[in-house]
Amino acid sequence: MSQVMILMGSDSDIDYMKAAVEELKSAGVSFDIHVASAHRTPHRVMKLVTEAENGDCKVIIAGAGGAAHLAGVIASHTILPVIGVPLPTLGLGGADALLATVQMPRGVPVATVGMGNSANAALLAISIIGTADERLRNWLRDYRKAFEKKILEKDAKIKQQFQ
Amino acid sequence: MSQVMILMGSDSDIDYMKAAVEELKSAGVSFDIHVASAHRTPHRVMKLVTEAENGDCKVIIAGAGGAAHLAGVIASHTILPVIGVPLPTLGLGGADALLATVQMPRGVPVATVGMGNSANAALLAISIIGTADERLRNWLRDYRKAFEKKILEKDAKIKQQFQ
Amino acid sequence: MSQVMILMGSDSDIDYMKAAVEELKSAGVSFDIHVASAHRTPHRVMKLVTEAENGDCKVIIAGAGGAAHLAGVIASHTILPVIGVPLPTLGLGGADALLATVQMPRGVPVATVGMGNSANAALLAISIIGTADERLRNWLRDYRKAFEKKILEKDAKIKQQFQ
Amino acid sequence: MSQVMILMGSDSDIDYMKAAVEELKSAGVSFDIHVASAHRTPHRVMKLVTEAENGDCKVIIAGAGGAAHLAGVIASHTILPVIGVPLPTLGLGGADALLATVQMPRGVPVATVGMGNSANAALLAISIIGTADERLRNWLRDYRKAFEKKILEKDAKIKQQFQ
Amino acid sequence: MSQVMILMGSDSDIDYMKAAVEELKSAGVSFDIHVASAHRTPHRVMKLVTEAENGDCKVIIAGAGGAAHLAGVIASHTILPVIGVPLPTLGLGGADALLATVQMPRGVPVATVGMGNSANAALLAISIIGTADERLRNWLRDYRKAFEKKILEKDAKIKQQFQ
Amino acid sequence: MSQVMILMGSDSDIDYMKAAVEELKSAGVSFDIHVASAHRTPHRVMKLVTEAENGDCKVIIAGAGGAAHLAGVIASHTILPVIGVPLPTLGLGGADALLATVQMPRGVPVATVGMGNSANAALLAISIIGTADERLRNWLRDYRKAFEKKILEKDAKIKQQFQ
Amino acid sequence: MSQVMILMGSDSDIDYMKAAVEELKSAGVSFDIHVASAHRTPHRVMKLVTEAENGDCKVIIAGAGGAAHLAGVIASHTILPVIGVPLPTLGLGGADALLATVQMPRGVPVATVGMGNSANAALLAISIIGTADERLRNWLRDYRKAFEKKILEKDAKIKQQFQ
Amino acid sequence: MSQVMILMGSDSDIDYMKAAVEELKSAGVSFDIHVASAHRTPHRVMKLVTEAENGDCKVIIAGAGGAAHLAGVIASHTILPVIGVPLPTLGLGGADALLATVQMPRGVPVATVGMGNSANAALLAISIIGTADERLRNWLRDYRKAFEKKILEKDAKIKQQFQ
Repeated sequence: MSQVMILMGSDSDIDYMKAAVEELKSAGVSFDIHVASAHRTPHRVMKLVTEAENGDCKVIIAGAGGAAHLAGVIASHTILPVIGVPLPTLGLGGADALLATVQMPRGVPVATVGMGNSANAALLAISIIGTADERLRNWLRDYRKAFEKKILEKDAKIKQQFQ
Repeated sequence: MSQVMILMGSDSDIDYMKAAVEELKSAGVSFDIHVASAHRTPHRVMKLVTEAENGDCKVIIAGAGGAAHLAGVIASHTILPVIGVPLPTLGLGGADALLATVQMPRGVPVATVGMGNSANAALLAISIIGTADERLRNWLRDYRKAFEKKILEKDAKIKQQFQ
Repeated sequence: MSQVMILMGSDSDIDYMKAAVEELKSAGVSFDIHVASAHRTPHRVMKLVTEAENGDCKVIIAGAGGAAHLAGVIASHTILPVIGVPLPTLGLGGADALLATVQMPRGVPVATVGMGNSANAALLAISIIGTADERLRNWLRDYRKAFEKKILEKDAKIKQQFQ
Repeated sequence: MSQVMILMGSDSDIDYMKAAVEELKSAGVSFDIHVASAHRTPHRVMKLVTEAENGDCKVIIAGAGGAAHLAGVIASHTILPVIGVPLPTLGLGGADALLATVQMPRGVPVATVGMGNSANAALLAISIIGTADERLRNWLRDYRKAFEKKILEKDAKIKQQFQ
Repeated sequence: MSQVMILMGSDSDIDYMKAAVEELKSAGVSFDIHVASAHRTPHRVMKLVTEAENGDCKVIIAGAGGAAHLAGVIASHTILPVIGVPLPTLGLGGADALLATVQMPRGVPVATVGMGNSANAALLAISIIGTADERLRNWLRDYRKAFEKKILEKDAKIKQQFQ
Repeated sequence: MSQVMILMGSDSDIDYMKAAVEELKSAGVSFDIHVASAHRTPHRVMKLVTEAENGDCKVIIAGAGGAAHLAGVIASHTILPVIGVPLPTLGLGGADALLATVQMPRGVPVATVGMGNSANAALLAISIIGTADERLRNWLRDYRKAFEKKILEKDAKIKQQFQ
Repeated sequence: MSQVMILMGSDSDIDYMKAAVEELKSAGVSFDIHVASAHRTPHRVMKLVTEAENGDCKVIIAGAGGAAHLAGVIASHTILPVIGVPLPTLGLGGADALLATVQMPRGVPVATVGMGNSANAALLAISIIGTADERLRNWLRDYRKAFEKKILEKDAKIKQQFQ
Repeated sequence: MSQVMILMGSDSDIDYMKAAVEELKSAGVSFDIHVASAHRTPHRVMKLVTEAENGDCKVIIAGAGGAAHLAGVIASHTILPVIGVPLPTLGLGGADALLATVQMPRGVPVATVGMGNSANAALLAISIIGTADERLRNWLRDYRKAFEKKILEKDAKIKQQFQ
């Protein structure tokens, strides 16, 4: 079994979730990816989560919009860290998904990241696994340095163009 | 088994939920009442819901605050009508519970009533059972007339006092 | 007369409301559909609602945006279960319609479903009529199974593409 | 019949609505005051509004909280100017009442004033009647001057105390 | 001078405000229209408002977005009824303009209508002038009847197409 | 004339505004303080602002709640920096005042600080005057150091008590 | 050094943060606790975070209200998992702290938990450390079982009292 | 060194920030412009801010979206006036950036301007520098006059077209 399991409530969520796939691949972290709905396939979600906890899975990432119960339902079936990615939908701009993901009751936390920001969910998963894996801690340090370098390059360009 | 099952996520929710109890008793509708948490006792919720659907339960009422997944989780395990009562909590004034209860995905509806308004959840349950029960339809008509009479009395008082 | 009456405040709401039509047709539930405005044709609304209650109509579905009084006005004229579908409009993203539909006073509930989610309004209506109709309960069970199957197929595709 | 009719959805709304009574009395504008609910006594509301329009009533003021349909329902039954006062309720702070009062569809306006601000509803009614009544226009001018004087006195006090 | 003065904060607001022009023209109510900004031309606003009050102007309509002080600033310079039309802008969807227009302090009301709904501002102005003008009251009654007729036609079409 | 002018819309705002008084006194910055309302005493506001700009006033601080036009109205009459302090009111929690203060149109900025945070308004005024006054820049550096020291003391206490 | 570091922006936040202390003590997880402000003691925050990362600290928990930059600032200085606890403040009910904590840019995640829910922050930290510590995974399983038992007891009581 | 330093969190923010560049150039105020992220290049931000304060920089302008910590982080490292420009992002419409920028704790203010309104940030910076620079005060007066003239021209056009 893989180190991370990614679940999303609908296959249309993949546009938001694929950034997580990219970051995990880039860090060399193994993962499984599934479409599974808290409301339409609750037993399937339970089965996937139980298998993950019994295997060597370390972290579960769940992306969902609207009432967005997926991350919370997963968290109710496992003691693994669960990361929730609220996804924006038409109308309320994702405020529904954000609140439904983050406002979990005492006892069953969901680690919530920003709206549609599955890249950060993956990076958080990497830092969690990294608490016992020096290679990943170094990967994160390199990732930050690379990001820093890119920003310095953009800084130079902006100055040329506008100053 | 009873006609209605009432579930609430925490025993502290009873202050909001007891109005439902009063209305159901007053209409002579039988009910079961439980504290059961979608996140802290998910299997218990599932068991209660399955038993209710297999018995002669007609409607399930669920009250919860915060991320408020209870009604949605129930709805994922039954095809009975599920009524959700969002409960206010400190901070966000219950907007979290409202959105997490009402914004269910296509296929699994929750019939949501107003913030903390469990009386209306009970009245909605009565009108649902009433679709096949003339006694309850007449009870509802009487309930409305009694309410109307009370308002006319208040109207008379206001006029005396302020006009 | 039909089992369900669908009302919408404006003919432009049909884009949101036609999913209800599809679900009802698919379940073999008879329905009437009307454009009728709580504010611009209040007497017409009253007449349609009274005729529905006096006929064998079981449930009324109302879709409206903005101040969205339609479902509440209908509920004030009938003891039938009324399902409200808040519709998004420009600017406030439908928060106005949601709050105006769901926050009904004690005594007169509206069963509110998610933003623009008329499919769920139809499914809720079917489950309400289903409380006294085994064929519809079975239809709902089949509907859920079909949905589940579709999700499992999507799950298989996602794994092929991204894992 | 009186020049202004005040309606409120519940007798508990009087705490917010009595400021309107005071301003109207102070301006010498005659008024009727009623408790009448859009949802629980819809026919009573209709009757009161029709009588008001047929009498010499000039303006209707309606105060309501929650889904707050009262002003809109009144406006659907009259071409008189209708002033809506959204009232705050627990939880959502009155955002529900504000949006349900102000977001009326094209064709049926409600003149909405600030949250719980029935004094301003009365002053607006006075200015509306004042469009054809010079005494009231002068009363408003005097009212503003008196207010200005009071503020200048408070200004003097603040300077003494804090500067 | 005209019966109604329309002010807007920016010439780009005309897309929202021209519906008011159409309704006033259709009702035969004379009007003046101006671009004038509460913040960028405060003295111009004051001058226009004072001239309006001293002429035979009956009602002022103001449309503005963002901080939307225009209606309130006008109201501070006149005792005429002032109608505010909040206009949506990018980002916050017009919630800023709505709150800045409606939440006026005691003593200085603004009659606020729905987001971008200048047609309703005009209709409200017509009903205000109509309190002393039977022709306009009859015009409003005809307007409502025409609207009702249009909706009945749409109702017939919907039934043909979907039932 | 003083370096800073403080205006507030109502004398009841002083509970929020006195923190500004304390900070200015502590920094040795001279100030005038006034109660003046954008809506109820618009000419008084204009006069105070014009006198301030013609004197040697450097910065104006305005605190207001509700529609909160005060800072914007001041800014429309002066090219001095204007600092707006949104004040919370019942119901909407100050969201109205915040948006009405900050969302000014291009050309007329208001420097907005946090809800009810008049201390920060004073500190911002001091830093603005400090751009040409080394004594004040040093005062601000000392202020920060003193704050830092206080936090370190609290840090020590927390560790003793809870670790 | 300890396994967890708890930081809070102000000593008044301890009322919300002490639940984290209790959970960590109960699980036998070592921790350091500090008052340190992102804005008033930025260098202190940086020093504490660097020392934590260089020691054997595994997870950092940060609680802050208002603009609530603390968790984000910490995350900018470490690749350790950072858990943010948004704290409610007067006025906006904590919506400011929630959004400022959760909406981090790509590259620097903060694992956000519910409003004021520091207990869940501690439980999340325990599950993170638990990914490489079987004793803690078992502790979490026992914690859940104990919670479940408590709810079953409450369930029994509610049934006795209300059914 | 220049009088104003502009920082933005990402180079994609330039679409919003270039209006600041234009206003500063037009006023003849020297400026530096940088891309620098509070979270991804925290040390770079600190270095730029310290250099600015040690040089003759008078005001710092920071634009950022999402959690939008940039202005606050800058303010924690300098006693110069810091102006924050909240930038809208997908989903929440910029409410996150607005609250995260404006709700700073006592002691460390950020002068916040409207959503995406970098032109106003520049004008505020000019008025701040103008407190000790008569040329800039006169420039601002001319700017306002030019704006007024433009509005009068638009006013004339609107009247021709619609009256």
